[in-house]
Amino acid sequence: MHTTKKLLASAAALTLLLGSAHAEGPYRNPDNKSLTDAGEGTYPVPYKMPVVSEITEVLNRIRGYMDASTPTRVIDKKTGNQITDFSKPNKDAIFAPSAGDYGIMVYEMGVVHAGLFKAAEATGDPHFTDMTKRHFQFFADTQPYFRAQEQQFKLERNNSFSRFLDPRALDDSGSMCAALMRARALKIGPDLSGMIATCSDWVANKQFRLPDGTMARKRPQAVSLWGDDMYMSIPALAEMGRMTGKREHFDDAVKNALQMSNYLFNPQLNLYTHGWHANIPDAPRFYWARANGWAVMAMSDLLDVLPKDHPGYPKVLAQLRLSLKGIAELQSGSGLWHQMIDRNDSYLETSASAMFVYVTAHAINQGWISPTTYGSIAQAGWAGLVSKVTAKGEIEGICVGTTLAGDQTYYYHRPTSVNALHGYGPTLLAGAEMIKLLKNPNIAVEHRVRTYHYMPKTSGQTDYREHH
Amino acid sequence: MHTTKKLLASAAALTLLLGSAHAEGPYRNPDNKSLTDAGEGTYPVPYKMPVVSEITEVLNRIRGYMDASTPTRVIDKKTGNQITDFSKPNKDAIFAPSAGDYGIMVYEMGVVHAGLFKAAEATGDPHFTDMTKRHFQFFADTQPYFRAQEQQFKLERNNSFSRFLDPRALDDSGSMCAALMRARALKIGPDLSGMIATCSDWVANKQFRLPDGTMARKRPQAVSLWGDDMYMSIPALAEMGRMTGKREHFDDAVKNALQMSNYLFNPQLNLYTHGWHANIPDAPRFYWARANGWAVMAMSDLLDVLPKDHPGYPKVLAQLRLSLKGIAELQSGSGLWHQMIDRNDSYLETSASAMFVYVTAHAINQGWISPTTYGSIAQAGWAGLVSKVTAKGEIEGICVGTTLAGDQTYYYHRPTSVNALHGYGPTLLAGAEMIKLLKNPNIAVEHRVRTYHYMPKTSGQTDYREHH
Amino acid sequence: MHTTKKLLASAAALTLLLGSAHAEGPYRNPDNKSLTDAGEGTYPVPYKMPVVSEITEVLNRIRGYMDASTPTRVIDKKTGNQITDFSKPNKDAIFAPSAGDYGIMVYEMGVVHAGLFKAAEATGDPHFTDMTKRHFQFFADTQPYFRAQEQQFKLERNNSFSRFLDPRALDDSGSMCAALMRARALKIGPDLSGMIATCSDWVANKQFRLPDGTMARKRPQAVSLWGDDMYMSIPALAEMGRMTGKREHFDDAVKNALQMSNYLFNPQLNLYTHGWHANIPDAPRFYWARANGWAVMAMSDLLDVLPKDHPGYPKVLAQLRLSLKGIAELQSGSGLWHQMIDRNDSYLETSASAMFVYVTAHAINQGWISPTTYGSIAQAGWAGLVSKVTAKGEIEGICVGTTLAGDQTYYYHRPTSVNALHGYGPTLLAGAEMIKLLKNPNIAVEHRVRTYHYMPKTSGQTDYREHH
Repeated sequence: MHTTKKLLASAAALTLLLGSAHAEGPYRNPDNKSLTDAGEGTYPVPYKMPVVSEITEVLNRIRGYMDASTPTRVIDKKTGNQITDFSKPNKDAIFAPSAGDYGIMVYEMGVVHAGLFKAAEATGDPHFTDMTKRHFQFFADTQPYFRAQEQQFKLERNNSFSRFLDPRALDDSGSMCAALMRARALKIGPDLSGMIATCSDWVANKQFRLPDGTMARKRPQAVSLWGDDMYMSIPALAEMGRMTGKREHFDDAVKNALQMSNYLFNPQLNLYTHGWHANIPDAPRFYWARANGWAVMAMSDLLDVLPKDHPGYPKVLAQLRLSLKGIAELQSGSGLWHQMIDRNDSYLETSASAMFVYVTAHAINQGWISPTTYGSIAQAGWAGLVSKVTAKGEIEGICVGTTLAGDQTYYYHRPTSVNALHGYGPTLLAGAEMIKLLKNPNIAVEHRVRTYHYMPKTSGQTDYREHH
Repeated sequence: MHTTKKLLASAAALTLLLGSAHAEGPYRNPDNKSLTDAGEGTYPVPYKMPVVSEITEVLNRIRGYMDASTPTRVIDKKTGNQITDFSKPNKDAIFAPSAGDYGIMVYEMGVVHAGLFKAAEATGDPHFTDMTKRHFQFFADTQPYFRAQEQQFKLERNNSFSRFLDPRALDDSGSMCAALMRARALKIGPDLSGMIATCSDWVANKQFRLPDGTMARKRPQAVSLWGDDMYMSIPALAEMGRMTGKREHFDDAVKNALQMSNYLFNPQLNLYTHGWHANIPDAPRFYWARANGWAVMAMSDLLDVLPKDHPGYPKVLAQLRLSLKGIAELQSGSGLWHQMIDRNDSYLETSASAMFVYVTAHAINQGWISPTTYGSIAQAGWAGLVSKVTAKGEIEGICVGTTLAGDQTYYYHRPTSVNALHGYGPTLLAGAEMIKLLKNPNIAVEHRVRTYHYMPKTSGQTDYREHH
Repeated sequence: MHTTKKLLASAAALTLLLGSAHAEGPYRNPDNKSLTDAGEGTYPVPYKMPVVSEITEVLNRIRGYMDASTPTRVIDKKTGNQITDFSKPNKDAIFAPSAGDYGIMVYEMGVVHAGLFKAAEATGDPHFTDMTKRHFQFFADTQPYFRAQEQQFKLERNNSFSRFLDPRALDDSGSMCAALMRARALKIGPDLSGMIATCSDWVANKQFRLPDGTMARKRPQAVSLWGDDMYMSIPALAEMGRMTGKREHFDDAVKNALQMSNYLFNPQLNLYTHGWHANIPDAPRFYWARANGWAVMAMSDLLDVLPKDHPGYPKVLAQLRLSLKGIAELQSGSGLWHQMIDRNDSYLETSASAMFVYVTAHAINQGWISPTTYGSIAQAGWAGLVSKVTAKGEIEGICVGTTLAGDQTYYYHRPTSVNALHGYGPTLLAGAEMIKLLKNPNIAVEHRVRTYHYMPKTSGQTDYREHH
């Protein structure tokens, strides 16, 4: 008995040492009905034809988990008791904390809302936006209370509503601002025009910029430019353009897309380096996957609303195409992408992978890139993502918040956590867009010779008559 | 006892998990007679001076295995009984199945014959062509019977002789066609001019092509171009040129070598992407090793027979040189190459590695490239190949038949099997060419400072007098 | 009991199979005082702010080990007895052998002296040069004796003093020659002008060269060029220029730096290939890390003494900058670099890593490159190096002596040994330069958001007020 226990412990230790990948799979493609076909591979992820109902189930699992994890109550941080009387400010009043790092007003949650909107559209199920309505109504209900709290107690960053009472950065403003404007366009939730005015003003007018107008930060160097800020600014500017009809916002969004790319994009590799510092313009480059994700998400969001006759449209589209090609060529054998996108000895990272799957599938559906080859890349990426969603709707393998750093040791060893929110919105977006891809009337998907071929319906007939 | 068994099972499982590489080696170079030299490394493959007799033994082992695995009988597929009466067609008559996937008329077997011809030449042992004679005599003997079967029963792809009764693809024709013409030039086996006429006609006149004359297929997209088709067409066209003396075949072969390279070759990396689709000319690229192998095999075969005064000769030679450089720079530390040649986290693949060793050694022997550096690359590659040949003559680590796909997940997880024939011909070619390299009178091989230096004999004297 | 033993043996075997990396770490950054911060990673190396006293301790440990391992006695090689009577040559008299491969007159020891000089300067502790004084005094004391031995017995390479009695190669001369001249400039040890004259004459006038003046060797090919020879010649030429004031030596040093780079540097990758052969100018390239180390060490040493108004100064500086960028971009996640610098499946190699850390930190301190980004790269590299120094002052993971070879199998499987001296001097240099970096008054190092930011003090204020 004793020995057996030790053996089991030893086996368990072995499994840990070898990594959890061995705990999943191997999978055999169920679309190949021959169980004895020696030409069929086995896979670390469920390599198979995606099915709308299965994707929908995954989306619902994530939605349910998010919904359950994000309370919308005000509590006293000392007693933990709920506060319902908003007539008089309490210094200790805070948003009831979410599980994990799922703050209801953080930039990552802006992406979650975008994912929920897209999921509602792709599935036709309006319940996907219930959480958005609940959060946004809570904002409407509590903003006056927290504003009064601030006036009385000057809590600054410790005020739960600080991002919209006293915004100081694109992280405070851009992503959630875009979500608020999209909700307004979709007529979801209450009128939050006051919040929209606050965050729009920050993004358009108050954020620190380079002299040429490119969005920048005063950290970690005095003048630094972050790839992440493409997403933290461009979608908001684009939505401002759509909402107001003012061309200047589109111009600003386009300018930032192109100038950021000019500073950060390596045209030899078709990849974005994480950041740039004015005090070392030709620095060594670090191709952090998520920065590439923010870049393509930003350009994709911009193209969604940019008038096609805007002179920047073809330029942004060309830049997005180059980026997606560079990204596609670095997909790993598991369908996911690596934390450092050009380094196959760094771990597989979920949030960037989800962004890549989303934008690739979306670009196909929008007609920006061909389904041929890109379709199977998106599908393989989705197979990888599915393997990261747990039974309770958590998402594994997400790199936690990461600063603009100067060495690979830092980047390689960023922890991953289901508590990091960065991957939830992108995975919702990816799944929703995969549903749209599967329903796309212009594309046929063939399962032939043990793999998948995305066929533009207009491109002529194939012929397998020759095949043995 | 019970516990010990479990421990053994656990150890076995561990070995499986860690991969079979750990079961082989480590090897210490026996050419270094000092058993205590701390400067000598240990290797996962037998890193040592190749010896003609040892290579010959490996070639004989493979030949014996191939010979024993490829019956030349006609049987009734229902009863399994041999059919010897060819006077009247039987609907159920088929070629007696080979072991593995070693079909006697498949394109991979064309390469096996090429390997046997080269082995006979390099070793001086004509027995290497016995199997070729047996197979080809069988074709001569049974073609009328299967033609009659086809006329009566219309079996199409189920007719064992279909590739030469009703060719439909380059896979049916080109590789075996080249083998048949080579046999004819070498006066090996019976007169198969009828079969040669059939396959030549397909390759030269009937295969689907791009408007510019490049060989193409109608799968997986409506207009697709496969790197594999360089080998499936160019050697046959070249042999047609040699056999008939008609310049048009050389022109066609050269045109395809250059145009295929134009579509598929990435001059930044000096590598071939697996394929190209007319509906997405700028697609993400997948550098499948075997496609690179087919490309360099095809160009090498072409240069072997192309008149040196043909205007395409220097162009094809230049293209082959670039390709071999790109390939050489990606050789792994084990001497083999990876399934995705640019991805060191994909498995080591034998068939492509054998093709690279063959063409590299052959190009040296032909004077197309320098022995310096390339000689040791070929030698290290052969060390890797040797480690893949089992005691019974099977070859391990060969990727099974693989289609032109659109995602890395498919390529990374193609199974390997000793039953895949793709690596047998190339390994025979590689070993035979290594023998020729070792016998090459223009090259000296020095074992110095624990490694090997291939020295062009005309290039002056070295001096180790300075070396401590 | 029996079973338990087997289990332990099995666990030990498992550890071996999985590599020793798992035995070290993981480390948690002690600069982050929050023990529960979920955003803090764990590292395979001590990722933390380097501390001068800790680095000094490491330097002392290495110094003590070196000192104890390098006797300066003459012995009779047959009896082992010390020889103190130098009046009459003994055929069997040799330098008492050092431990490991730590010969007191080998080129690697020249780098150790350079490291000791730098350590004395950086720490202010003159004891760091004690070993140098002891070795050099021994040279002064024994040269007449070994010269007499040579005249009488003609031992050639078996004479312990052969490198300075009968130099035959840059390996014999350049590195130790530079050390001798530096000692003279620093007034350390006895007058060794005779030895300096011998080695200078070899480097400047007698070494085999290409017709264009580039330093070359007659091995392994008749005319070969080694990246290593940048270090074996350029620093000595530069020190000759400084010592004599003759511009011709600076011109020669600059010419070699630029021409070697012209032959060996790949400007696409910003890396040096190990070597070049006149008989195959366009050979496949092998990016051995240590060759890159020698290249940047040589250029750095040259710039240290080259007059700033020399026309070659900006050219060498530009070349060094490119090289350091290419190197920086390939640093591994552990802070070290790989044996083949572009291949992350080759082992992590200490000597090259130490050279890169040294030259990067030195280039920052000299103002040749910005501290931004490069500072954290040097720091991460030092964290990796520290993990390789044992409690007794040995340094692990150093690739043993390696020839210019033609295949990756050789390079990948070079053994590593604490007995290889190549890493000791560079690690002393790296540590000393890190101390200077930490003391550099122009640079502030901030530990912010769990990583390190090297800030040029002149470059303006950062602002974290926005950061949540």
